[in-house]
Amino acid sequence: MYNFKNDYAEGAHPSILERLTKTNLVQQAGYGEDEYSLQAKEILKEKLGNKWATIHFVSGGTQANLLVISSLLRPHEAVISAASGHIFTNEAGAIESVGHKVIAVPTKNGKITSADIEKTLLAYQLKPHVVKPRVVYISNTTEVGTVYSKTELQDLYTQCKANDLLLFLDGARLGHALMAPGSDLLLEDVSRFTDVFYLGATKNGGLLGEAIIFNHSAVGQEFEFVMKQKGALLAKGRLLGVQFLSLFEGDLYMELAQHANLMAAKIAKAIQDSGHQFLSAPQSNQLFPILPMPLIQKLLEKYQFYIWQQVDETQAVVRLITSWATPEMIVDDLIKDIRLYKQDEVVSNPS
Amino acid sequence: MYNFKNDYAEGAHPSILERLTKTNLVQQAGYGEDEYSLQAKEILKEKLGNKWATIHFVSGGTQANLLVISSLLRPHEAVISAASGHIFTNEAGAIESVGHKVIAVPTKNGKITSADIEKTLLAYQLKPHVVKPRVVYISNTTEVGTVYSKTELQDLYTQCKANDLLLFLDGARLGHALMAPGSDLLLEDVSRFTDVFYLGATKNGGLLGEAIIFNHSAVGQEFEFVMKQKGALLAKGRLLGVQFLSLFEGDLYMELAQHANLMAAKIAKAIQDSGHQFLSAPQSNQLFPILPMPLIQKLLEKYQFYIWQQVDETQAVVRLITSWATPEMIVDDLIKDIRLYKQDEVVSNPS
Amino acid sequence: MYNFKNDYAEGAHPSILERLTKTNLVQQAGYGEDEYSLQAKEILKEKLGNKWATIHFVSGGTQANLLVISSLLRPHEAVISAASGHIFTNEAGAIESVGHKVIAVPTKNGKITSADIEKTLLAYQLKPHVVKPRVVYISNTTEVGTVYSKTELQDLYTQCKANDLLLFLDGARLGHALMAPGSDLLLEDVSRFTDVFYLGATKNGGLLGEAIIFNHSAVGQEFEFVMKQKGALLAKGRLLGVQFLSLFEGDLYMELAQHANLMAAKIAKAIQDSGHQFLSAPQSNQLFPILPMPLIQKLLEKYQFYIWQQVDETQAVVRLITSWATPEMIVDDLIKDIRLYKQDEVVSNPS
Amino acid sequence: MYNFKNDYAEGAHPSILERLTKTNLVQQAGYGEDEYSLQAKEILKEKLGNKWATIHFVSGGTQANLLVISSLLRPHEAVISAASGHIFTNEAGAIESVGHKVIAVPTKNGKITSADIEKTLLAYQLKPHVVKPRVVYISNTTEVGTVYSKTELQDLYTQCKANDLLLFLDGARLGHALMAPGSDLLLEDVSRFTDVFYLGATKNGGLLGEAIIFNHSAVGQEFEFVMKQKGALLAKGRLLGVQFLSLFEGDLYMELAQHANLMAAKIAKAIQDSGHQFLSAPQSNQLFPILPMPLIQKLLEKYQFYIWQQVDETQAVVRLITSWATPEMIVDDLIKDIRLYKQDEVVSNPS
Repeated sequence: MYNFKNDYAEGAHPSILERLTKTNLVQQAGYGEDEYSLQAKEILKEKLGNKWATIHFVSGGTQANLLVISSLLRPHEAVISAASGHIFTNEAGAIESVGHKVIAVPTKNGKITSADIEKTLLAYQLKPHVVKPRVVYISNTTEVGTVYSKTELQDLYTQCKANDLLLFLDGARLGHALMAPGSDLLLEDVSRFTDVFYLGATKNGGLLGEAIIFNHSAVGQEFEFVMKQKGALLAKGRLLGVQFLSLFEGDLYMELAQHANLMAAKIAKAIQDSGHQFLSAPQSNQLFPILPMPLIQKLLEKYQFYIWQQVDETQAVVRLITSWATPEMIVDDLIKDIRLYKQDEVVSNPS
Repeated sequence: MYNFKNDYAEGAHPSILERLTKTNLVQQAGYGEDEYSLQAKEILKEKLGNKWATIHFVSGGTQANLLVISSLLRPHEAVISAASGHIFTNEAGAIESVGHKVIAVPTKNGKITSADIEKTLLAYQLKPHVVKPRVVYISNTTEVGTVYSKTELQDLYTQCKANDLLLFLDGARLGHALMAPGSDLLLEDVSRFTDVFYLGATKNGGLLGEAIIFNHSAVGQEFEFVMKQKGALLAKGRLLGVQFLSLFEGDLYMELAQHANLMAAKIAKAIQDSGHQFLSAPQSNQLFPILPMPLIQKLLEKYQFYIWQQVDETQAVVRLITSWATPEMIVDDLIKDIRLYKQDEVVSNPS
Repeated sequence: MYNFKNDYAEGAHPSILERLTKTNLVQQAGYGEDEYSLQAKEILKEKLGNKWATIHFVSGGTQANLLVISSLLRPHEAVISAASGHIFTNEAGAIESVGHKVIAVPTKNGKITSADIEKTLLAYQLKPHVVKPRVVYISNTTEVGTVYSKTELQDLYTQCKANDLLLFLDGARLGHALMAPGSDLLLEDVSRFTDVFYLGATKNGGLLGEAIIFNHSAVGQEFEFVMKQKGALLAKGRLLGVQFLSLFEGDLYMELAQHANLMAAKIAKAIQDSGHQFLSAPQSNQLFPILPMPLIQKLLEKYQFYIWQQVDETQAVVRLITSWATPEMIVDDLIKDIRLYKQDEVVSNPS
Repeated sequence: MYNFKNDYAEGAHPSILERLTKTNLVQQAGYGEDEYSLQAKEILKEKLGNKWATIHFVSGGTQANLLVISSLLRPHEAVISAASGHIFTNEAGAIESVGHKVIAVPTKNGKITSADIEKTLLAYQLKPHVVKPRVVYISNTTEVGTVYSKTELQDLYTQCKANDLLLFLDGARLGHALMAPGSDLLLEDVSRFTDVFYLGATKNGGLLGEAIIFNHSAVGQEFEFVMKQKGALLAKGRLLGVQFLSLFEGDLYMELAQHANLMAAKIAKAIQDSGHQFLSAPQSNQLFPILPMPLIQKLLEKYQFYIWQQVDETQAVVRLITSWATPEMIVDDLIKDIRLYKQDEVVSNPS
């Protein structure tokens, strides 16, 4: 049984474990002051083309989200998110737990637009009886696998600045977004067109870790206090430093994301060729094809994946996720199984 | 320069890295449902002699403290801690951040007694104008390196039960406490005489990780929700599972703590032999000797450690910490340097 | 200009001010232990037919909501509310501020049904990645002026009990709901078919005050602590006690609500007679008629009220609220102005 | 039995009730936008000699404290208070409930000095493992009845400004402090030498109410949101507006405080004349005399007051509080009873 449920079913890219082993007994300062963390941050700042950036490494996405948002907001302020946004749906109330409302905006494809912001601001005018929107939270890739173009991000940022809003990008799968076929968005653009964002390692080759990047000094001041207070400051920060060093000193991070995307694209093509539709157009390493139930049942005998939502009695949307570790051989098997079903069906239909 | 500042300056025990490497590409369920975590929990329950225990692995001590305390308390309830307790002094307001007051109790040696509880309860009678004490937090070893005897823990637990209080033990260094020379406290006792406690790996051979153990079903219900909400649920829970499996399937955890204690005891003996006093009697891997300033200056040329508090112009308390990774050779060097100073002094004094 | 914007534009029913004046210099215990509060609570318990009830007086509705909800929920638990519910729309994030998500349920008329609960529970199954629904919050009258029948409330309560949910009724306008023409719901029913509710005085003749009623001992334990902690415990609790005593020792509370309802019903009839529609059927003291813009403009010359939402260029929904203090003479004026417009229109149409 | 336990045992100054009655049926805007509130704020600003001040009326002291502090602090910041400070001892964890640690400073007489600040800042250097002190909270009069001189307040403010700290003065009994015999502190000084403070009406002639004053625009922005969110924004803000108008349009507020102080001074003199000592020197309307137990027992037959702390078997500190409503006749009776005891004793002693 191969698992297409998520992109965190394996451990880490082997080079990370090797480096952890090699540096294991070198004594280092604690709490993120180790030399690997410091070096990784310098490298990242260079890749961002942003010397004003301040960077912090934390363990996971929910943690990153609650830390950043609680550091940005005053008590009465709120965060705008797509209704499909991770902070609204799948973080067990993390943002509310630190005192803030998440204002959910319905979207077509998981992406927030300038118009969504405008509409939301209009709906939150009855001061002081409503919360005050102050942060816009977006994910790239989104929770349905779509990606923002450079123009989309720039427009959104311009809209935010015009309305004294901060733009925060959840990059748990930012590598996959940047390496999406046809994407014109660069890492430097993300640093220019957001106030704060993070680059996720957990879902792209790390054991754990997200690199939070504050792009300018108006945000993120004294963030270490908030990290310590919320239990996010690891005594052995080297664990995070070594990983980001391995992922970013060369191009490993982008290569791993590209591999995941390529594997997904191969599967997507096979599905399309077989005449199936998608809930949202395939762009990155998450696929949401609409498949007939018999095919789904057949695939579930050999592969693990989630049935995302039932369309009707005969078909359902499923979610297939590839990762840095997905073997091409398994992908080819899956494709064969998908195509095979189609042939069966074609044969049986005439009778 | 060898670092005696803390017990988290190195990575992990090599066997942990080996096992992480060996299991790296085995696909596993996320969020703590991996087979290593499940197996490690079974082993732990057996070692505790407590089949009712429920166990959760988290990343660090501050995180463990805020998760446990926020899961135990209603909004108006508070936690009693020694004034030297980590939650009161060194967690950047983590407990207050989740809404609760920490009631600080002055102690002689970092340990809370039955009498302290009684006195505190008397001082918090003016309902509803005061907070309601509900949890007692203790550390073992304490922040000054002392340890609780079995009788001390049992007395405290009896006092807690008599007053409808929950007893929570911070075991960031519980291995060192249990392996302290002369300690009669067993792991099973800790599970019997507390409501909840944790076993720390971060400071005893792991990369990160604390195993939180709820000893009975009246506490810890639905704890996974709280973990997820506070950003403590790792997608790759295998990272924690593999570590606790390595540390507890045999006796590694206790052996590593014993090594740290032995190294400290050797140093302590040399210091005592040289005629120096201690702030608190040496019991575990943290030493608080009172040393003359010239000796301190001399040692600082070769070793890193904290000057804990100035006693007067001629002497200060310093903190020396040994760990699972402290090489005996370095300890012997340090001892030589300590004894050497004494001889110099002896020689020079008569003149 | 007469104000139909809300039901809190005047002070208090004169008998309340008289009683405050008469008892003014009698020394009383503070913090709700005064004899007026104690007596008012006894009277209320009798009227509820519920000797197990515990009662607390607080200053306002938002305060009551956040106190009750924070006392009922553990950190990971959430409250279900209609999307039109006051806690979701108009309390500046009060519930999120005490750490909890409000799960918004779209409704047709502001009322939550058993089916809504069932659907919500189904959507919140992915433990521990989602919040856990634990409280259902309803308003009666609702924010759009509708009322729950006895059967509706009983069904909802049965559904809650079947799913281990607590039912909390916001009764800021409960008097108006109970006195609504055709309502079969009695005060005793509310005490039987909810876990906790409150009776609002602020909008029904008091200067300020809501009486929170916990119907059984499984809820509301140690509530005074929470009141004190959130700044809700008045030093001079007599101010609230005297008011509830005045409102409930006889039938004043119900009489005042009935007056408000009657005034609204007169206006509603005139609007209907004039051929206008309503957003929701008029049931209590809040009316949401759909009026032509010229009529609205005309009325705004003499009366204050909110334009609730624009329907199209020619008409809008407006909100008219009557209160215990609304003079019948003003209502008759308003009716005349409404009918007059209709006549004008009738006259002008044939031409 | 006359009650000397506190200064909130009666209702309000009669002129307040009269004005409430007189204005009762005038329709007013809600939520603090009524004309009485607006007018009272203008008058207050003039009396403060501070046209930049922004003013908000809330219900009580605990509420004022938690609102102000939560509006001033970021999550990791903390408030410094005397160990006897109300927020540390008697507010059921209100400040912790909004997420912040209260750093308690031991004092001799309830007053914080520049030196206390310096010492505290030194103790909180271990960034980011400790909270960051940001607000200094003081009470005037203090919880033990002492008052700050102009120089003391100015020194403290200078120290705060030198260390980027905000100074917040709890003025639940500020009238009594300003009218204390020998006090050189003026209301204008308080507005100049603090960042934010409040003037309490609850304990000085009002039914309820504290006027929070932010002295400059760097603090208190968007405070209405926080008020609404924490349940502090009264729908009928007129109730507070009318009271502050009555208390401040003339000199009533200061006159009422002066009366309380005078009554206390008379009692204090009699106690001193009778040879008894005080825990802290009598300065305002709270007295802490040390009395022999037989006298205490005798007085308790006719008067209610708190035994504050037992000194030894023969004597105890008691707390006597006078108010705006304390009748001089009762004070004279009390004095007679105190002197009488002394005479008895004098008579019996020689034998």
